Amino acid sequence: MSGDITPIPTRWVGPLRLTGDVEAEQDVPLATYESPLWPSVGRGARISRLVADGIRVSVIDERMTRSSLFVAADAATALRASRDITGRFAELAATVSAQSRHARLIDVDTEIVGNLLYLRFALTTGDASGHNMVTLAAEALMAQILGWHPELSYGSISGNYCSDKKATAVNGILGRGRSVVVDILIPADLVRDQLRTTAARLVELNVRKNLVGSTIAGALRSANAHYANMLLAIFLATGQDAANIVEGSQGITYAEERGDGDLYFSCSLPTLIVGTVGNGKDLPFVDDALTRLGCREDREPGENARRLAGLVAATVLCGELSLLAAQTNQGELMQSHLLLERRSETSR
Amino acid sequence: MSGDITPIPTRWVGPLRLTGDVEAEQDVPLATYESPLWPSVGRGARISRLVADGIRVSVIDERMTRSSLFVAADAATALRASRDITGRFAELAATVSAQSRHARLIDVDTEIVGNLLYLRFALTTGDASGHNMVTLAAEALMAQILGWHPELSYGSISGNYCSDKKATAVNGILGRGRSVVVDILIPADLVRDQLRTTAARLVELNVRKNLVGSTIAGALRSANAHYANMLLAIFLATGQDAANIVEGSQGITYAEERGDGDLYFSCSLPTLIVGTVGNGKDLPFVDDALTRLGCREDREPGENARRLAGLVAATVLCGELSLLAAQTNQGELMQSHLLLERRSETSR
Amino acid sequence: MSGDITPIPTRWVGPLRLTGDVEAEQDVPLATYESPLWPSVGRGARISRLVADGIRVSVIDERMTRSSLFVAADAATALRASRDITGRFAELAATVSAQSRHARLIDVDTEIVGNLLYLRFALTTGDASGHNMVTLAAEALMAQILGWHPELSYGSISGNYCSDKKATAVNGILGRGRSVVVDILIPADLVRDQLRTTAARLVELNVRKNLVGSTIAGALRSANAHYANMLLAIFLATGQDAANIVEGSQGITYAEERGDGDLYFSCSLPTLIVGTVGNGKDLPFVDDALTRLGCREDREPGENARRLAGLVAATVLCGELSLLAAQTNQGELMQSHLLLERRSETSR
Amino acid sequence: MSGDITPIPTRWVGPLRLTGDVEAEQDVPLATYESPLWPSVGRGARISRLVADGIRVSVIDERMTRSSLFVAADAATALRASRDITGRFAELAATVSAQSRHARLIDVDTEIVGNLLYLRFALTTGDASGHNMVTLAAEALMAQILGWHPELSYGSISGNYCSDKKATAVNGILGRGRSVVVDILIPADLVRDQLRTTAARLVELNVRKNLVGSTIAGALRSANAHYANMLLAIFLATGQDAANIVEGSQGITYAEERGDGDLYFSCSLPTLIVGTVGNGKDLPFVDDALTRLGCREDREPGENARRLAGLVAATVLCGELSLLAAQTNQGELMQSHLLLERRSETSR
Repeated sequence: MSGDITPIPTRWVGPLRLTGDVEAEQDVPLATYESPLWPSVGRGARISRLVADGIRVSVIDERMTRSSLFVAADAATALRASRDITGRFAELAATVSAQSRHARLIDVDTEIVGNLLYLRFALTTGDASGHNMVTLAAEALMAQILGWHPELSYGSISGNYCSDKKATAVNGILGRGRSVVVDILIPADLVRDQLRTTAARLVELNVRKNLVGSTIAGALRSANAHYANMLLAIFLATGQDAANIVEGSQGITYAEERGDGDLYFSCSLPTLIVGTVGNGKDLPFVDDALTRLGCREDREPGENARRLAGLVAATVLCGELSLLAAQTNQGELMQSHLLLERRSETSR
Repeated sequence: MSGDITPIPTRWVGPLRLTGDVEAEQDVPLATYESPLWPSVGRGARISRLVADGIRVSVIDERMTRSSLFVAADAATALRASRDITGRFAELAATVSAQSRHARLIDVDTEIVGNLLYLRFALTTGDASGHNMVTLAAEALMAQILGWHPELSYGSISGNYCSDKKATAVNGILGRGRSVVVDILIPADLVRDQLRTTAARLVELNVRKNLVGSTIAGALRSANAHYANMLLAIFLATGQDAANIVEGSQGITYAEERGDGDLYFSCSLPTLIVGTVGNGKDLPFVDDALTRLGCREDREPGENARRLAGLVAATVLCGELSLLAAQTNQGELMQSHLLLERRSETSR
Repeated sequence: MSGDITPIPTRWVGPLRLTGDVEAEQDVPLATYESPLWPSVGRGARISRLVADGIRVSVIDERMTRSSLFVAADAATALRASRDITGRFAELAATVSAQSRHARLIDVDTEIVGNLLYLRFALTTGDASGHNMVTLAAEALMAQILGWHPELSYGSISGNYCSDKKATAVNGILGRGRSVVVDILIPADLVRDQLRTTAARLVELNVRKNLVGSTIAGALRSANAHYANMLLAIFLATGQDAANIVEGSQGITYAEERGDGDLYFSCSLPTLIVGTVGNGKDLPFVDDALTRLGCREDREPGENARRLAGLVAATVLCGELSLLAAQTNQGELMQSHLLLERRSETSR
Repeated sequence: MSGDITPIPTRWVGPLRLTGDVEAEQDVPLATYESPLWPSVGRGARISRLVADGIRVSVIDERMTRSSLFVAADAATALRASRDITGRFAELAATVSAQSRHARLIDVDTEIVGNLLYLRFALTTGDASGHNMVTLAAEALMAQILGWHPELSYGSISGNYCSDKKATAVNGILGRGRSVVVDILIPADLVRDQLRTTAARLVELNVRKNLVGSTIAGALRSANAHYANMLLAIFLATGQDAANIVEGSQGITYAEERGDGDLYFSCSLPTLIVGTVGNGKDLPFVDDALTRLGCREDREPGENARRLAGLVAATVLCGELSLLAAQTNQGELMQSHLLLERRSETSR
């Protein structure tokens, strides 16, 4: 029955060549109503294969977070409790580890506003994105802490300092999900032939549009053209909680001209939330997609999700590079959109 | 072939009762991997039907935007051009109207940074969300303006001051998409019986979590628990460009206790980008969904999209109300999640 | 008696050469505990005199704002009232003009959150910064509006959507104070001899530090090295309300290499709040300073304040240029600070 | 000669009663052109003396920061270097300690954007605010690090991730200056008699204006009425670098009604940058002011500055409480301003 599913148009694009923390030559699936995204990412993928190192992946950090809110009578009480709690990190960590062999408490950040005490728990969660794992952990930790400190009372299991699916600064600064940087060095001739532009013009556009333009827009830790598009498409196709594109799209595109017209191009995604196991991942088509992506292998916990994170970030780079190149040329964006839509209508 | 589509699990939930700028008693479709969302929105919908006025909808504004970037030699040149251009608004408007009978230029905002001139064009776009319409318009306007001002040169068709699918401040302040406020007044007994809480506790939680918690998280024009979840689900199921949840989720939940324990509860969504015609809307299941939602009627241009915007906003209210109520009670969130997941596994 | 005043060390630096919307060859006073600021601004001033056009000033906009908060029963009531109020702009404007011949209402922006209605009144205020004028106006306008709309009640004379002395996005986007851009084109030999750097290196630093660095810091509409320092010093020395450096410092430095090593350098200050009459301006030393600055002339209302705004912005450019140039060279910043502090101790 | 100093009108107000991490009954000096500030803070001070515990001070954290920018060929190189550098924390700390017996390295935060590596050094700096100390430390650390890693090159001594005198999110989240919370519990009769309002009305105003109003203004980690005013006045009068009001003013006012009409009122200031020794503190009137404030005693390093931080925060609370109370009553703000200005003119 048609009401049971929403069938999002999907194509596999690539392969993309990845090196560094993730080594792969791999197609990626993009589920989207915006069909121009497919050839756009496809152009980036083609370039990645024309460069020896392809897209180089650096995975900087990984964690999932949940902040819980406790209420005290006043700030002094909140502060005393806070110091005691963070001083008993080992006991908190033991509680988390007892719940799941894949969950490990790695950090507790605190913030006090008047009599309100926010504790932000950070966990590594293996190959799961970890939404449920951190909520479960937070629940156990709250019970433990309220047992220690009867002068505190329950405020909320989530105090919004987490911060889930919201445009905030805390996630990028303290970390949430995987922090991944992908970059590529493209020789001048490929810039000219494949991207129909020059390194100098693309660098200039990136400064004026992604950096200055985002600044006047009042952007928050965000300087890119359209990360959200690529993230949405690959998140949907791989069974991710795609509402995490809200924070996932807060990333930075940075480019430099190197040597005589070569282009250094990078995308930094500090809050990429993906998983290869857990909620939604046992749907048959998700299982298929993750298997085809090589993210169902028998590896160390976290390795499959790391691979997925690298593939997602590289996909973002492909689409970002392609769109920026198009925008360096007056009229190119609209022409290619119109062309694609005409093709797409013909092929239906 | 399974690679052609991504089948997102979908259920119709409701009906929701809407009054005010949108009058309806209507089920809504939610496409999501997060199955607990269905009963969560369902609880809110049930409450809406138990209240005479249901969820009241106010549509405040509607527009779609694109900013284009022009480059001058210096600020004085940019300013002179800017004043001339905005002074010729009627000519710009004529260019836009000539392209499409549904597009109408309603505003041009300008911003100058050094020698860079950003013009932000705002259009009404009838029942379309308007992404393509504003890009097409911006292209024609750029050509017109560069014709008038040879001292300017092309910077970018999009200068990121638009701002599309990014967490920024400009959209909420200058407007992008539809600005909708939905609110409901819930009698004390319903608060107790249906939401298992009190108005006082829910109001307190909203202040501590959504307002104070979001503030310390460094949120940007955003104070809510999880608008992104509901937006994603209904956007996907109705063929919207779901990457617009990035700005769509920047909204504010505000609640007050009224009289003797009644609850006033509101969700303000200043940048809701939806359409009932245009890209993606001719897919058969999208057409079905929009028809079933009553958004394919023969109405004044903009009316169908306005109805959809009201339905989306009301859906957001249902899910937000339900989650916040659950979070006022220690342990409730996790229990209901676990319960739902167990049920869900049984029913598969 | 020493308790009656706080004597801030002050020097006049310059002269700076200004052209464009403000034409001047003028020293400026800097009151500061940070003595290195004097030679730093001095270096920029010297460069301005070595360039034919000096620092070119563009004054883009001017206004002062106050937002007032009204409370309704619900959003629909707030929206109906809002539409009626903005539709009676002429009556509101008459009320403002009746209070002061220098105050003129030029805009009313509205924002609705649930049942809360925020009206942001924008006035031109002649040569006054206008803090008191807008508060007085808001008071009269609130009384008028509450008379029209008994279904609204008083929320607050100031609803923080103004927004006074706070780091927000609204001021830069809707305007508050004067919006001024200053820029200069510096030949390659002056860049080398006076700034001891190259255009390429300074442009690169500006991108990496002021644009990318500010982005990861979570800056809000702000991309500069130290506008706050210059603003504080000249605000204090000219009797301004120096707490307005909070929003005043939210500006953008943008630079480009031109031709063969020439440097285009600009500072954009969208929210510069200054006045030459009004509160504090009748103190004898303030009167002296403003007279010496040529800001007490018999001119059209607003002209004296415009001149002051131009001088302030040019001073900001001088200090910003100088510090950035120093930071392109490893070790230079600290050496010059140490040198200056040693000199300063000797000279006491 | 009048050009040598700028004489800011100054009054000592109080005494304020402080308990908790700072115990004092102490007048404070306010240097300001805005004379209504004196009675406004004075009213808060009077209330503090009428409450047994007065204003309770909690000092949560203290540190000063400087971020330096290094440039690598690519992200992988930056990441390898970053991991090596943070792994050699003890060697970095030794370098800092060798420079000054009051400087101690307590944290190094890293952020990578493409090939750019930002290291944010955090130091405790005894009784100094620490601006120069961290710059000096950063210079030595950069030399050390560039010695270890010839594959990195100098980017900037300051990479704006510090972040000095700018409206950013990083300072509140990672810490800069002292983090202080001050709170007070005011019995209902004092709220009525001294503040001419009720706890319920003041709490409601705080939510609607400081929390919701700031949110729509696009405020960044800031929810207060006018911290900047009090900070500026006491910073100037005590020889502080008053440009630090930019980040200092990013704080949160939070209030609750307790029991039967009592008012819990708090101000949280996460980034309060003050010192009692160092640059500017040897000016005779600054020395006098600090001595009179009891901040020149022979105490453990950091204790004098901590006392000053507590006094500053308590002063902020007094002014904030007083203004908010006034704004709960229509017309009160303007009446009291007009009254004060008339008095002030008479007394001149």
